[in-house]
Parts: sequence; structure tokens; C-alpha cells
Amino acid sequence: MTAATNNPGKGEGQKVGVAILGLGTVGTEVLRLLNEKSEDFERRIGGPVEVVGVAVSDKSKPRPNVNPDLITDDAFSLVQRDDVDLVIEVIGGIDYPRRVVLEALRAGKSVVTANKALVAAHGAELSDAADSSGVDLFFEAAVAAAIPVVGPLRRSLAGDTVNKVVGIVNGTTNFILDAMDSTGADYQEMLAEATRLGYAEADPTSDVEGHDAASKAAILAGLAFHTRVTAADVYCEGISKITAEDIAAAKSADCTIKLLATCERVVDEDGSEAISARVYPALIPRRHPLATVRESFNAVFIEAEAAGRLMFYGNGAGGNPTASAVLGDLVAAARNIVHGGRAPGDSTYANLPILDFGQVRTRYHIDLHVDDRVGVLADVARTFSDNGISLRTVRQEGSDEGARLVIVTHQALEKELEDTVEQLRANDAVLAVNNVIRIEGMDV
Amino acid sequence: MTAATNNPGKGEGQKVGVAILGLGTVGTEVLRLLNEKSEDFERRIGGPVEVVGVAVSDKSKPRPNVNPDLITDDAFSLVQRDDVDLVIEVIGGIDYPRRVVLEALRAGKSVVTANKALVAAHGAELSDAADSSGVDLFFEAAVAAAIPVVGPLRRSLAGDTVNKVVGIVNGTTNFILDAMDSTGADYQEMLAEATRLGYAEADPTSDVEGHDAASKAAILAGLAFHTRVTAADVYCEGISKITAEDIAAAKSADCTIKLLATCERVVDEDGSEAISARVYPALIPRRHPLATVRESFNAVFIEAEAAGRLMFYGNGAGGNPTASAVLGDLVAAARNIVHGGRAPGDSTYANLPILDFGQVRTRYHIDLHVDDRVGVLADVARTFSDNGISLRTVRQEGSDEGARLVIVTHQALEKELEDTVEQLRANDAVLAVNNVIRIEGMDV
Repeated sequence: MTAATNNPGKGEGQKVGVAILGLGTVGTEVLRLLNEKSEDFERRIGGPVEVVGVAVSDKSKPRPNVNPDLITDDAFSLVQRDDVDLVIEVIGGIDYPRRVVLEALRAGKSVVTANKALVAAHGAELSDAADSSGVDLFFEAAVAAAIPVVGPLRRSLAGDTVNKVVGIVNGTTNFILDAMDSTGADYQEMLAEATRLGYAEADPTSDVEGHDAASKAAILAGLAFHTRVTAADVYCEGISKITAEDIAAAKSADCTIKLLATCERVVDEDGSEAISARVYPALIPRRHPLATVRESFNAVFIEAEAAGRLMFYGNGAGGNPTASAVLGDLVAAARNIVHGGRAPGDSTYANLPILDFGQVRTRYHIDLHVDDRVGVLADVARTFSDNGISLRTVRQEGSDEGARLVIVTHQALEKELEDTVEQLRANDAVLAVNNVIRIEGMDV
Repeated sequence: MTAATNNPGKGEGQKVGVAILGLGTVGTEVLRLLNEKSEDFERRIGGPVEVVGVAVSDKSKPRPNVNPDLITDDAFSLVQRDDVDLVIEVIGGIDYPRRVVLEALRAGKSVVTANKALVAAHGAELSDAADSSGVDLFFEAAVAAAIPVVGPLRRSLAGDTVNKVVGIVNGTTNFILDAMDSTGADYQEMLAEATRLGYAEADPTSDVEGHDAASKAAILAGLAFHTRVTAADVYCEGISKITAEDIAAAKSADCTIKLLATCERVVDEDGSEAISARVYPALIPRRHPLATVRESFNAVFIEAEAAGRLMFYGNGAGGNPTASAVLGDLVAAARNIVHGGRAPGDSTYANLPILDFGQVRTRYHIDLHVDDRVGVLADVARTFSDNGISLRTVRQEGSDEGARLVIVTHQALEKELEDTVEQLRANDAVLAVNNVIRIEGMDV
């Protein structure tokens, strides 16, 4: 489990030296709050906090509110300095932060990071390095910014059995989908709006293609199921193919469309357990609590055996909310530096098998345009039944150019559903498959 | 702040001995889960957990699922035993648990409690005893059961400035008010229904008169504002005077009525800070997230400077949800026992003044039956303005027996509002004051 620490603590009143790596939106906010609230931090930690260095990529860039003596472009040297006890990594990216964070951990510095991609890709290696050095590695800010969810999963639910974690964990995509839902506009238009308002970055790929959510899903699944889960284990599908017609179809079904990160424990008839983690846009009934999450807000919905259903809701992104989470972790790590000890490391003892996505049970909403000829409905229905899929609802609307068939399946294996759709596409009576969107949350 | 601990830890693999005080709904569930999931607990803690004794009030009562060798009625001796490392207090009440818990803390045992009344009344004394012995005192289960809120306030928001905490923290009263809202039934009828369904106890006073919520408000305010707050500091008004007409009036104002625990930091024009904590039934707009909390669920809404708005929602009561919170704390305390160290104690350095309730700014919804004579409206309006209160909305409906005046004020000091109502009651043109209910959440 965790290597015990021999950290006896520097002692009450002793200074905690902090290095900040990265001075973007979050780094700037962290630095500002550490200065502005320095007395509160000292009282809460039991010793003064001093930022002793700030690493940036471009030393020449003017930074009006920062003491120039603190600025360096040599992060590797900074994290090894004797006057540094704790390192905050808010650079972003994977390879470079990985190397610097490992250097910091090996040098015996505690690390607080907001870097979801780094933790999702290399969490195990970083955790082992933290264990070896007997220092803390905290990453609340990596998932859902200010909304405490890493802490509750690591700590409050440590005595419970978590069965499911479903989250809206990306503000950019929730803003776009919510705007499409309220205005009826199409995806490109709302992506442009999101960019204009600052909810989407210049290159929005990581957000809109679901990679950001997939990193967070990996972290959440690992914590929930006490198993190592990396971003590569998470099936990932973004929102760039969602159309205004999809949103309208969802409305007719009394649903809305959300990009959901779903982490689930499944138990076989023979009692064997496995887990899955996946990100995709899904129809969700409007009565479901997650359906009420608007604009760029985030929410995480947890089902645990004893606790029942819990939901956490708030700002999942932004400089201030992310800084709040970073500083909460800083206080905890700094308290340990002053008073001794460390938090438990990752608990990954369960080591549950991770299901291949084809083996995950999901439910499809399928919208087909079919030729209006005798026997088409029977033909389509038989394709489903041949693949072992039973249908929950079927709606047929005729028109001059054929008929529209909207089908909601019962739960079935993803593989069976994919095969069915492939066969439908190959059927010449099926003129078009207008959309295939999974459905979640129907059992709430 | 916190006395550093010299707890070096028993060592990986060493046993943690647990004493459970109380074998009611929660105690029974905790014992059951510790037995059923013993392997998970051992893996998560880093050493086996063994329940070595269970204290009850009546040894003769049959307890089919409990090893009789564990049972004792001498809690004082139990908590002092050498084979006990950690004590779980789930007895309830104040005086007796206080004495036993102090005994346990002084004997160097870590304590996990679900007892809101105890912590609200004697939290400071218990915290000091825990600090002196260098052991943990945890009480997540005392507030909102399984919903993590103590942990987030103590830990995740430790780097932020919390300005407001508003919660629905009592399941009994929320069930009753929600049932009155959906059915139009009166209070006594829905209290009977709540009792029948097990949402209210045989003697529901502590719940319906707001004392349970007030204890929780004291705990939340103390954590949020780093100040010692006891139950005696919390203004407390329950729901037993709420009528079906009040609920109907709320609906006309597009509101619902909830029993709210409100903890707030206020800053004067001269920059001086103070805090308030109060419990009363209040109108809340239907669009407010707290208005959507149904049945016996709980929710806590937090506003912090960097984090912005957060909401936590789930089961606030019940054997299983409370056990979940107790066991999360048990894992944390047990990890410290095995690996060394302890969590920080209470942070109460801010020591902010606690406002007298009369000095709290609130807003009233007042429903008057007035004599239908010339000048009554002017007279009533002048009573408000004489007390410095401005009116937000006024609605007058005439009838054969006089007129009904429904008034919503702007924010004003509670004292001014109380004085106004007193003067209105004394005015012989005011035939009846049908209700006076405060309003919250209008600025969401």
C-alpha cells in the first residue's frame, strides 16, 4: 500500500518554501492568492508559506505583478533547491511536466498538480515516486476544478463500495451542448460562440473530442475502484458529430444530450467483477439530476453501496476554481511538511480487470431513414433480434421520401449494437442512418 | 493551531482495535460492514481492523448477529483498554457521550463520531482533548450523513475563503415540507405520514423544531469561518407553525418553503467581519438549486471566493448513509494509527464575532388580513418606512371581510423587521397576521 513516511515535520512556525511551475491563468491566480491571503495561509498551515521561485517558459515576457527575482526558466534546478519543500505544477502537457514532476518527487518535494493528462497517463509512476520519497502527491484540481471529487473518493468514501461514477466533467462541451439545446443552433455555430466567450480554446480538440473528459474518467475510475486506470483504458468519443437534429430528436424523447464520463463496476452472474470507463455523448432523461447542469458547470454523480446517491456540482474549470482546488491541496501538503506525516498514497489493491468497450452494456437511440417498401420494418427488427437486442420503443413516421424509424433499444453489449448498426448500414432498404447516440441514466 | 503528534504509527500490517459505542441502526450497520468487507478495509488501511468490544445500554437484549463476547455495558472501561486504538461513538445524546468520548481521547484513542449534538455543544473541549493526546477526532457523519461536507470544508476549501453555507440538512423536515408542497396537505397530516414511513421519530421535536439542523449549522459555520460556533450561537426556528396556506402563498410567489440552515460571513462598510448562523423555514425561489431537493434528501450549497458556487447533494440520514460516513472517517483514522501522524485539528484562529440574530439582514414575506377602511394601506406602508424597511412587492386583494395584503420586503435587519411586525399586530386595522416567513436565495 503506502510506504510509511519518516517525515517528522519541520516544526510549528517553520517556513514552507513553494515553487510554482507555470504562470498561466491558474499559476497567476495561485500566486496572487498566496500573496493576498498570506496570513490566513500561515494560520491554517501552522507556518508561513513563501513562494521562492516561479518557472516559466519565456523569461523575457513582462509579468507586472510578479517579483522578477522569482522568475526562472530552469524548472529542473528550481525543484531541486534546498529552500523548496513543495512544488505546484500548473504547466500542462504531458512529457515535460512528467520529467519535472518526477525530478521534484525524487528530490523529496511534495507535489500538487492540476494536470489531468499527466495524472491519467503516468499516475502510477508518479505515485510510486511519491511513495518512495515519502512525500505527498495531490491532484484535486485535475478533475472538476473546485468541485471536491478526488478528496471525497480518496477519503470520505474510503469505507464504502463505489459502484458508479457518472460526470459532466468538461465545461467547454457542456456549454456547447447546452447552448445547442436552448437555441436549436448547430454545432459549429455554438463552438464559435464558446470560443468567442472564452469557454473554448483556440484549438478546442482536446475538449470537443472528449480527451480531457477521458483523462478525468481515468482518474475517477482509478480512485473509485482502487485499480490503476490510464487514459488509454478509456473509450473516448467527442461531440463534434452532434447535430441540431440530434438535439431535436433528444427533445422529442424528453431527453437532452450531455457528454458523459461513465465509470462503472459490473458483476457477472458468476460473481466476477470488472470495471469500465468511457466517454461519449449520450441522451439523458430531463428528470435526471445531470440533465439540469447548465452552461459550463460540471457535476459528478456517484452511487455507492452504503452512501446511496451523491451529487457534487459546481465550476469545473476556470482560473479561480482551479486555483481553489490547488490551494486546498497546498494547505494539506504544507500542513504535513510542518507537522509531519503524509497522506496515504494511491490505493490500487483491487486491480480489477478493465472491460474492453465492446463488452460494456449500453443502450442505443437510432434514427433511420428507410425506403418505404413492404417488409422494411420487419427486416430492420430482425437485424436487431439476430444480434440478441430487444427493442424498448419504435416510432415510425412516413413521408413521401420513405419513412423515418426512431428506435430505442434495451441494454445490450456495445459489440452487438455496433454489429447491428453495421448490418443496418449495409441493408439497401436503409437509406441513411441519421444518428446513433447512446442513452444513459434511464434507471434513475 | 494543532499540537504536532508524536504518533510514529504501529507499522504496516499491525492490527487496529476498534470499540463501537452504541448498537442502534448506525452501530449495527457499521459492525456489519466491518465484518462483511474486512478484506477491503485491511487493504485500504494497511492493516487488519478488529472490533474488540461493543458497548450497549442493555446487555440482556438479544442481538442475533453479534458475537456475545464483544458486548459490554461498561463503555468507560472499554475505551481505556490497551487493545483499543479507535473508538466509534454512535450512541447519541450529549452528556453521557461527552464523558465517554473525553475518556477515550484522554486515554489516547482516536475517535470517530456521528453525534451532531455533542460536537455542536462541546466541539471545542473535545478538539482540545484530541490535540493534547495527539489523536484524531473525526465527525463527517454528524452533518448530512453520507454527503461529504465536513471533509470538503476542512480540507478541499482550506485554501479558499468561504462566504456562505446554506443547507437543507434535516431529512424529516424536508420530507414533510416537500409532501405539503406536492399534496397541499397540512402539517399534522404530513408529520403523521412521515412518522408512518419512518422519516420521523416517535418524538420528532429535535427534527421539526430545528434543533438537529441548528447543531449541524453550528458545525458547518465553525468549519467554514475558522471560528468556534456552538449550538447556542445558532438562531433556531422549526416548521411546526407552517400551514398549507403558507405553502400555497409560496407557490403564488413562485417559491417553495424549505427549512434552511444558513451560515454567512458579513463585512461591514468599515471592513470589519462577523458571522451568523441561523435555522428557520424560508421561501426559496423554485429556480434555486436547493428548491429541487425532494423528499428526505439533503443538500449543502457553498459559496467561496475562488471556487464560486458548489453544491453537494445526497442522503442526509439513514443507517447506511451515516455508516458510510463513519467508515470513511474510520479508514482515515486507522491509516494514521498504522502509518503514523494525524490529521490537523480544528482551525479556529479567525475567531470572528458572531452576530446577534437581530443584526442579521433578512427579508420577509408577510401576509396580512386588514380591515377594508380608508388609509389602511398607507398606514401599513408607513409602519415599514418608519422602521427603515423598503418594500419589494405589495399585492392587495379585496374581499367582503376586508383585504388581504401580501408584502415582500427588501433586505433589512431582523430587528427592524421584528419591530415592524409587532407594530402591525398592535394596529387595530390589522385584523390578522396570517404568516411571516423569511425569504432566502433571491440573489441566485
